[in-house]
Amino acid sequence: MSSNSMQLNETDLSTQVITREELLNHWQGHRRLTRRVIEAFPEEAFFTYSIGGMRPFAALAMEMIQMASPGIKGLVTAQWEEYKDAPAPTTKAEVLQLWDEVTQQIDALWPQIPANRFQQEEVIFGIYEGTIISHIFYFIDNEIHHRGQGYVYLRSLGIEPPAFWLRD
Amino acid sequence: MSSNSMQLNETDLSTQVITREELLNHWQGHRRLTRRVIEAFPEEAFFTYSIGGMRPFAALAMEMIQMASPGIKGLVTAQWEEYKDAPAPTTKAEVLQLWDEVTQQIDALWPQIPANRFQQEEVIFGIYEGTIISHIFYFIDNEIHHRGQGYVYLRSLGIEPPAFWLRD
Repeated sequence: MSSNSMQLNETDLSTQVITREELLNHWQGHRRLTRRVIEAFPEEAFFTYSIGGMRPFAALAMEMIQMASPGIKGLVTAQWEEYKDAPAPTTKAEVLQLWDEVTQQIDALWPQIPANRFQQEEVIFGIYEGTIISHIFYFIDNEIHHRGQGYVYLRSLGIEPPAFWLRD
Repeated sequence: MSSNSMQLNETDLSTQVITREELLNHWQGHRRLTRRVIEAFPEEAFFTYSIGGMRPFAALAMEMIQMASPGIKGLVTAQWEEYKDAPAPTTKAEVLQLWDEVTQQIDALWPQIPANRFQQEEVIFGIYEGTIISHIFYFIDNEIHHRGQGYVYLRSLGIEPPAFWLRD
């Protein structure tokens, strides 16, 4: 920090607003809600139901997994490969198991992200440019975005989705 | 900060990761994308099209406006009234005008949020408990969530939505 940090006032735009621990809880809270949305789908609809030519929720869940798992490793190591689609396993239970493995990976690796990483510019998955913090928000926001899609699938199947504010 | 701040190491969970200015850009970037989604809707479908009994996108856009406008004022002043639904104006152009007014409000008021506010616990809209930073993320995430719903509406209308990564 520069000597300017001694003169911070209430309107200083460089004020930091969220801790790394809060951001982890924020991410995992969203992942807990998405897990509930996966659970809410009937087995077959999870793999096949679609509106407007969009992907079934199983494919969206796999995209979230394929971002988050190599993602948390890359956040720690700065090593990235190209993003790869992965076919979903054939049962919802197996997808949920993958989901839970990624939950553990994120919890285990998050504290190992070097503190100076968050503001670093880095190309991830061989293509996406931005700061590390912008990439983390992309992972989270992409999940919220596709989960919102899942809510429409569920509603149109006549199923009440879990409340959006549920994060525990 | 306590004297512990002198001994921070790379794995310290209290590391701050995003500045207030970055968070403003993050929020406004999402709002710019949502504005494009509003624009993408045909005039009539914006007010009437629905899937699974969910609200038309006009009602969702009004919810975003009714959260963000009293929201940014409450973030600055700590004054909150109960959340109120507001009926949408009768044209998309009028909704976009409201949208742009809120954009200006947010830009104008954001720097006035006192630096010590972000970690304060506060009940907002007379009902929602949490820290100010958690409420800010709720505003953003609720918008991403409902916008994802709008993407399904557009796709099922045969309209290509704007790219999710567009934020400029």
